[in-house]
Amino acid sequence: MPVLVTRLERFNAGHRLFRPELSDEQNLRVFGKCSNPSGHGHNYVLEVSVEGHIDPETGYLFDLKTLSGLINERIINDVDHANLNVDVEWMKGLNPTAEVMASTFWDRLEPHLPEGMLYRVKVQETDKNWAERLRELK
Amino acid sequence: MPVLVTRLERFNAGHRLFRPELSDEQNLRVFGKCSNPSGHGHNYVLEVSVEGHIDPETGYLFDLKTLSGLINERIINDVDHANLNVDVEWMKGLNPTAEVMASTFWDRLEPHLPEGMLYRVKVQETDKNWAERLRELK
Amino acid sequence: MPVLVTRLERFNAGHRLFRPELSDEQNLRVFGKCSNPSGHGHNYVLEVSVEGHIDPETGYLFDLKTLSGLINERIINDVDHANLNVDVEWMKGLNPTAEVMASTFWDRLEPHLPEGMLYRVKVQETDKNWAERLRELK
Amino acid sequence: MPVLVTRLERFNAGHRLFRPELSDEQNLRVFGKCSNPSGHGHNYVLEVSVEGHIDPETGYLFDLKTLSGLINERIINDVDHANLNVDVEWMKGLNPTAEVMASTFWDRLEPHLPEGMLYRVKVQETDKNWAERLRELK
Amino acid sequence: MPVLVTRLERFNAGHRLFRPELSDEQNLRVFGKCSNPSGHGHNYVLEVSVEGHIDPETGYLFDLKTLSGLINERIINDVDHANLNVDVEWMKGLNPTAEVMASTFWDRLEPHLPEGMLYRVKVQETDKNWAERLRELK
Amino acid sequence: MPVLVTRLERFNAGHRLFRPELSDEQNLRVFGKCSNPSGHGHNYVLEVSVEGHIDPETGYLFDLKTLSGLINERIINDVDHANLNVDVEWMKGLNPTAEVMASTFWDRLEPHLPEGMLYRVKVQETDKNWAERLRELK
Repeated sequence: MPVLVTRLERFNAGHRLFRPELSDEQNLRVFGKCSNPSGHGHNYVLEVSVEGHIDPETGYLFDLKTLSGLINERIINDVDHANLNVDVEWMKGLNPTAEVMASTFWDRLEPHLPEGMLYRVKVQETDKNWAERLRELK
Repeated sequence: MPVLVTRLERFNAGHRLFRPELSDEQNLRVFGKCSNPSGHGHNYVLEVSVEGHIDPETGYLFDLKTLSGLINERIINDVDHANLNVDVEWMKGLNPTAEVMASTFWDRLEPHLPEGMLYRVKVQETDKNWAERLRELK
Repeated sequence: MPVLVTRLERFNAGHRLFRPELSDEQNLRVFGKCSNPSGHGHNYVLEVSVEGHIDPETGYLFDLKTLSGLINERIINDVDHANLNVDVEWMKGLNPTAEVMASTFWDRLEPHLPEGMLYRVKVQETDKNWAERLRELK
Repeated sequence: MPVLVTRLERFNAGHRLFRPELSDEQNLRVFGKCSNPSGHGHNYVLEVSVEGHIDPETGYLFDLKTLSGLINERIINDVDHANLNVDVEWMKGLNPTAEVMASTFWDRLEPHLPEGMLYRVKVQETDKNWAERLRELK
Repeated sequence: MPVLVTRLERFNAGHRLFRPELSDEQNLRVFGKCSNPSGHGHNYVLEVSVEGHIDPETGYLFDLKTLSGLINERIINDVDHANLNVDVEWMKGLNPTAEVMASTFWDRLEPHLPEGMLYRVKVQETDKNWAERLRELK
Repeated sequence: MPVLVTRLERFNAGHRLFRPELSDEQNLRVFGKCSNPSGHGHNYVLEVSVEGHIDPETGYLFDLKTLSGLINERIINDVDHANLNVDVEWMKGLNPTAEVMASTFWDRLEPHLPEGMLYRVKVQETDKNWAERLRELK
């Protein structure tokens, strides 16, 4: 029967939603206030869930300190107090919506976890908006 | 791989849980304090999640401003600061439990979203009670 | 040096803001959506703070179980799942705004606490609106 | 189409993560600060979700007062203000991680609910760490 | 006896903490990660409290819809989805720390409220950091 | 005009409320479930506020990174994942109620801050109970 454990991390970052091939006016029409050329930002909340079996010896499915370390090393260290359009090598050329971030963060974590263990990546942008990439339970 | 985006909206409403064919005493036995004849109310929290693919051009799965507009137009405008037993045409005759509300709100939204996109409707009544209508991931 | 302890309690209630001598239209102009004749409601959060000295024997300023009991007996039992305009004997004739409630609840609690101990009563109506009655620190 | 209702309950408990066959130093290496021999504790948040159909007569999938009563009787009464390593008969010999707790609580509740109704048990240990046992939707 | 009412508003903005007369390295030493030259941002929470007497006719100390309108007109419309270092005319030349923002927002609101009514302005930057400008109770 | 900045920190700890000169039964009568001999615990939230003037050069009243460092060095490092009755040298002999903790933490911090700067120490034990030690504004 599936068991999940989740680790939550927070980071603060700046971003601007826009497509470089569009004018400021066109971007305003598509992305609204989020396309403001000088940018804005958020207190992002990132949740990462893994699925697996409980190790009968330790009672752990996966050590959340290890998971926290991985999330920090692969993601937080690069995005915290950064401008997501400018400062993050592996986000270059991406429009940093919450759903693009959830999907990109998944790709950053997945190869560094035991195969098939990553279950969900959730990126919360505001108290009203968030995105998730996830798979079916096994 | 499935991706979800979610929009949260809030509204305040009054309601009473009861069945009109029962006496006040009988309703008290079934619905407890929630059947108080002069009604009570809640700060409801409504979350709506849609599933789909990220548009590579915009980075959006679905524009959350559009989703918010739809939720307001189809639901919030009618239920906010309303009495759910009396004021809402499309809830007439329903007993406004959280699960009935989640299910009814689903039916209000589903035909106005791209086919198959609606994934989950969650209605939170208090910090301890909530209901969800949802489907399998695609 | 002042020390405070606070107890938080929750209740759900219905209310309508209006003045009986005004027409529905006039009430709508003054109280907006809150004057809807069939009422609405909230998940209220009530915080009660008392000020005093720590008893060196027990380490308690005031036993929060006792404070909780008093709040329930004097307030919550009457207002929970009630309609504040109709069901509460000691609120009859009052317009149940958050500030009127904070002030009325103060008067309900103050005579039942050691003299001069009550420090603040806060009534939160929504995540965005609240009222407090309080005094200077001693 | 699946509908869920969820009840949240809170409890405070003490625990220590360790394996009795290891030395304090070895436990420190595996469980970090959580293995402190004199223990620590948490404000746990427990969420229990059930899946089913809405009764067209009552509008209830499952009465949340009944669910709350069951959770209290089978779990909260035993674990609240308890030391999870010492005081709870049915947790003896278990290492009280959040995932072990979610799994054990599932087993405490499942036989007392209508067959196949239990959907998810979530145990939140801190604002950053939680575990869930759940099944596929029907 | 003093009574307060409070209105909470949210906005998202970008900022950078730095002094223009310092080099990037010097700014890094004083302001840490917050001085990142390409900026970052926050989901700010703004609370505004006013003190006064309850109008016995309306039950209002001050209409919170009016207060909300004033906060939006004088502050939120300018700072939401803006870069605080660049886009806000009345913040030009200020280093946008939370305490500078609380103090500046006070000055924006105070002349537009009845004399002596403004009691506190709180600006929350993250779940761990906030600033307040306030006065004694009357 | 007074300005405050606040830093919030979290820690998890175990405790038991009791007086050593009383029997377990007597302690149960005074402290209820909190006197359980094998202890329980909490996710504590600690808020520390300081009052002062904004430095016109930096825009800081007091650097919150410095305040966070001080709180960790003087308090969190000792109490986190500790048993408050047993493991903390400077709490020996104290009954660890929230008000005793707020008062003791004040004494730990006050001599290490600029004179007269400490304004409030708040210790939250559960979502319903907390204590504060504070002084008048200057």
